[in-house]
Amino acid sequence: LVTALVGGTVADVYTGTWTAANVEIESGRITYVGPRQPPDGADVLDVSGKVVAPGYIEPHTHPWCLYSPSSLLEVAVPDGTTTLVYDNLFFFLAHGVDGLRSIVDAMNGAPAHVKWVARISPQSAYEDEAERFAIEQIAPLFAWPEVVASGEITNWMSVARRDPRVAAGIAAAKAARKRVEGHNAGASYNRLNELSAAGISADHEAITGDEALARLRLGMWTMLRQSSLRPDLEAMLRGLAPVVDSARRLMFTTDGAVPSFYAERGVIGGALRIASAVGVDPMRALQMATIDPATFLGLDEELGGVAPGRRATLLVLPEIGEWRPEVVFVDGEIVARDGEIVALTPQIDWPAAPRIVAPGADAFAPLTGTQPVARYESAVINRRVDREVGPGDLQAALVARDGSWITQGVIESFLGDVAGFATTATTSLELLVLGNDPAAMARAAAKVAELGGGFAFDNGWSAPLEIDGLIAAGGFDRALEIERRLTFEMGRAGYPFHDPLYSLLFASGDFLPELRLTPRGLLEVKSRTVLQPARRLR
Amino acid sequence: LVTALVGGTVADVYTGTWTAANVEIESGRITYVGPRQPPDGADVLDVSGKVVAPGYIEPHTHPWCLYSPSSLLEVAVPDGTTTLVYDNLFFFLAHGVDGLRSIVDAMNGAPAHVKWVARISPQSAYEDEAERFAIEQIAPLFAWPEVVASGEITNWMSVARRDPRVAAGIAAAKAARKRVEGHNAGASYNRLNELSAAGISADHEAITGDEALARLRLGMWTMLRQSSLRPDLEAMLRGLAPVVDSARRLMFTTDGAVPSFYAERGVIGGALRIASAVGVDPMRALQMATIDPATFLGLDEELGGVAPGRRATLLVLPEIGEWRPEVVFVDGEIVARDGEIVALTPQIDWPAAPRIVAPGADAFAPLTGTQPVARYESAVINRRVDREVGPGDLQAALVARDGSWITQGVIESFLGDVAGFATTATTSLELLVLGNDPAAMARAAAKVAELGGGFAFDNGWSAPLEIDGLIAAGGFDRALEIERRLTFEMGRAGYPFHDPLYSLLFASGDFLPELRLTPRGLLEVKSRTVLQPARRLR
Repeated sequence: LVTALVGGTVADVYTGTWTAANVEIESGRITYVGPRQPPDGADVLDVSGKVVAPGYIEPHTHPWCLYSPSSLLEVAVPDGTTTLVYDNLFFFLAHGVDGLRSIVDAMNGAPAHVKWVARISPQSAYEDEAERFAIEQIAPLFAWPEVVASGEITNWMSVARRDPRVAAGIAAAKAARKRVEGHNAGASYNRLNELSAAGISADHEAITGDEALARLRLGMWTMLRQSSLRPDLEAMLRGLAPVVDSARRLMFTTDGAVPSFYAERGVIGGALRIASAVGVDPMRALQMATIDPATFLGLDEELGGVAPGRRATLLVLPEIGEWRPEVVFVDGEIVARDGEIVALTPQIDWPAAPRIVAPGADAFAPLTGTQPVARYESAVINRRVDREVGPGDLQAALVARDGSWITQGVIESFLGDVAGFATTATTSLELLVLGNDPAAMARAAAKVAELGGGFAFDNGWSAPLEIDGLIAAGGFDRALEIERRLTFEMGRAGYPFHDPLYSLLFASGDFLPELRLTPRGLLEVKSRTVLQPARRLR
Repeated sequence: LVTALVGGTVADVYTGTWTAANVEIESGRITYVGPRQPPDGADVLDVSGKVVAPGYIEPHTHPWCLYSPSSLLEVAVPDGTTTLVYDNLFFFLAHGVDGLRSIVDAMNGAPAHVKWVARISPQSAYEDEAERFAIEQIAPLFAWPEVVASGEITNWMSVARRDPRVAAGIAAAKAARKRVEGHNAGASYNRLNELSAAGISADHEAITGDEALARLRLGMWTMLRQSSLRPDLEAMLRGLAPVVDSARRLMFTTDGAVPSFYAERGVIGGALRIASAVGVDPMRALQMATIDPATFLGLDEELGGVAPGRRATLLVLPEIGEWRPEVVFVDGEIVARDGEIVALTPQIDWPAAPRIVAPGADAFAPLTGTQPVARYESAVINRRVDREVGPGDLQAALVARDGSWITQGVIESFLGDVAGFATTATTSLELLVLGNDPAAMARAAAKVAELGGGFAFDNGWSAPLEIDGLIAAGGFDRALEIERRLTFEMGRAGYPFHDPLYSLLFASGDFLPELRLTPRGLLEVKSRTVLQPARRLR
């Protein structure tokens, strides 16, 4: 059976022009684009006056910010973002290669094209990192057809100094003709040269037009980010205005935004709306959302354009420059209409996560005297201040999920007078506990353990995150509701910034300045010095 | 040791801009591009006032038109064409996988980047084609790092009708994340849709701007050809003018031109000069010669731009828009200066070719009475005319190199009153014999056999082609001299067109209209009817 979209304007991202053409679809693929009328018996959709565009591509996201790889599609697909590249990190860490494979398999049944990156190193250093990310473990993942790149290497010093294990991972990705994603946040121009020289193919960490331009010039495919944590797209596009038309290798990313961001702004559609607002030519913007990432990912023979042989993954847009699709096709099937998904998202059979063991109150005995205190200056950046611990400071701890070790620290300007709060929503997949009362901290941790992961204030709000302690079971709306409540409760507890979820996730992320709670201990990131090693609990 | 190019203008093909920057090179790769001064002890080349550009890429050529894979570099490298993609066809046919491998190995030592395509079907149908091009034979070639695509599929009907062997070859190339080159000469718009739908990634056979535009729109990477046989670049660029700046996926190719063409015009440099003459923006033209083909070929992390991590394969150009390099670097070494190669080209240990066996005069007994006569209308196109054979017609024969079979035909408007002429320079690798005197034809054939391949007029000029009967041993100059003499001798013998070498090469090429001498017999190409089967000789 032939489906035909007749009478529309096709977005020809290959030549950068808009052209009147009919589109024929058969068995999930485009079979014809041009002037002819559809064959007798075709299922004809009149798209006169409308635009037929390729589905948008999100080349870099983390499908675990309360939403799951499946529930994220509830907002992505109606937005027109029909191809998503997912980070494998937490699934690989929590469930190993077999668990990851079952999740990838499930997502192959999605009403979208879900691709993956495979990490070659974690976001937070682990004692057993070399074993978990052994090249024999990692290299075979690059042969998976779903894996399109190696995942961002957050510890870019390991790239610059040519750490042998990281270099072997980069080489394995390249040998499989796959890309190598960097994470070059804050890297100087000279450092960017070293990172490009070491094989980094792409970066998404520019925050100004000049930073983006430097990355492009040095040969990196450059993702312009508009995330909840870092909404820098407008500034970057203004800075790039002189080259945006002649440049290639530009893309948009939302980099794993929080649920409310996606609910309110869409995924790549949101980035396109910003591009339009800033005055980027609609065709150029669309190329950045389609054929440029498809080419980057080595998917341009399958996706990213309206041409024969490609998947029939298409958007019907009301007019040029209006990015909200009226109809979304994936593989020739209508999967969303007028902002609502009409296809089923996959059921993932989540592998069971190990039980969480919360320590008792004595584990949380407060640090006193002069300490390196983490003074928060933004949602995710803190500065080290060495001083006497005083009232108003918060004790913080990262605890192994199995209760075997604890890393303690002191933070300020993060929450107010909170007795005890705990969560498993951390990039290191461990238990983060905050508060000023050891008994309350232990109770909050015990509550999170009882929930099987989630958020818990001592004597207050709690919510389970059933999947790996990070993801809410069920649909996107549940993730959204939990995030909104978390934001409310954190604000009520004195949290002063805009992104409480990422503040928690990144409290243990050793890729951000300046003090981090890590499995190895309290880390000063820049010098990579462990100021206080993790303590064994049993 | 660091080499530094200081004070120049770098062609930044990534952003499409020209930028003042120094370039540092170490161990054959670019390590830095930017404002800093070179380190103490660096080997500094002052390029003030000059342009530093990536080497040009020729994505599609046939390295056997009298020159060899090695001797072609004598004209390519000084031209600035430092990456060449070579067709494997004749080497694979003549020497099998092992012979091909030894040639590929030798070319890995070239002062240029030599990559290869692997054919999945021949240019002329063979009886044993299925065996020679069995998928078990072909698929492993796509794992070779030097192989970047499957070679052009001249019989595009086999693609359109989804011939299972061809489809398997296409699938094997794509599974290895490599491109599939088409040869869609004369395909209608509807047919181009089918070919794109069947997986053709690229085409080089457009001859007008509209044809090129159709290919782009239908998702094919499009090579704009300027060859000795088909110098269509200017017309195509004029036709494409409205989209050339916004289009991606455009490249230049010379498609295996004859030696004199390269000697007089260069390789990709010649195409760039035409682009400039037609008014294409120099940066856009340079992108078509560098980053666009590098991206097409999956080589953009190694080649095609001036950025860290890339091979230090660079040109020093005197100014923007002047495409003749003053200095050519390959992997950090100076390999050409002011139009002269200064590096050694590889010695290929050519595998021995089987002995040629010429038949006696009786094999050439003339065809008489009413025959399908091939009337030549251009260097390579003929039309079938059924009529009585008369004076002025030429008897033609394709003979197996081992003398085992013969295909006979009659041609007109090709040569004048020639008694006997023979050559092994044919796309089917067989012996082509022309003339009006069977004894003279046999003598010419015997002479070619004695030479071990080459050209021979009975009682006149002859020249050996020592390598596979197709390639002149020695340097490029010898190939050039033979071509010039061939052109002179063919002209003297009444040849009326512009490209005698291709006329001979393609006399047995069953991808061109209308009558061809093939191993299967005299073929009417369009209907694929064998009008007269090949005859066994022993």
